[in-house]
Amino acid sequence: MKKMNFPRSDLLIPTVIQDAKTLEILMLGYMNRRSFNKTLKEGQVYFWSRSRRKIWKKGEISGNKLGVKAIFSDCDKDALLIKVKLIGKNVCHTGNKSCFYRKIL
Amino acid sequence: MKKMNFPRSDLLIPTVIQDAKTLEILMLGYMNRRSFNKTLKEGQVYFWSRSRRKIWKKGEISGNKLGVKAIFSDCDKDALLIKVKLIGKNVCHTGNKSCFYRKIL
Repeated sequence: MKKMNFPRSDLLIPTVIQDAKTLEILMLGYMNRRSFNKTLKEGQVYFWSRSRRKIWKKGEISGNKLGVKAIFSDCDKDALLIKVKLIGKNVCHTGNKSCFYRKIL
Repeated sequence: MKKMNFPRSDLLIPTVIQDAKTLEILMLGYMNRRSFNKTLKEGQVYFWSRSRRKIWKKGEISGNKLGVKAIFSDCDKDALLIKVKLIGKNVCHTGNKSCFYRKIL
């Protein structure tokens, strides 16, 4: 475990996913210690699903996987930023490239 | 309240702050219903401080404020992305422009 605040293995860290090339924000997911370790090891992004309460590899079913290009933590070590290469067409289950497609203002 | 999931006024929504011009990710903070309303009304970013347990206007003391350029919610309406114009020099209390200055990989 590289310097992240996972004092408990079930603790969740919000993780921002950014397209490494276009710098577009694609989604925000949650990592626990195990999904972080798997992401580091495999070079593709794993999250913790809060609704299904299990580890999931992004794109395992949809095919839209996230290849890790760089990982940053924030000053407090309680948030992550991962720059990715999107393998596939889009990230969001709605068919949008990014999950942040709803413009409020 | 514009279409966000704040079923309780104390519920917290992770909020990604992105430089509207450079697209750099500057920080991740948390909003509750009240800080979201104040942000919408005033056009500058307010967060909920989890450690101090109160609303705070980003830059109130440091002077490094965040002017709102655009706000997006994600597909599940449980995360926010705010594109900002940084008023001041940097966002992080360490003196770095972005809080995500620690490269893990």
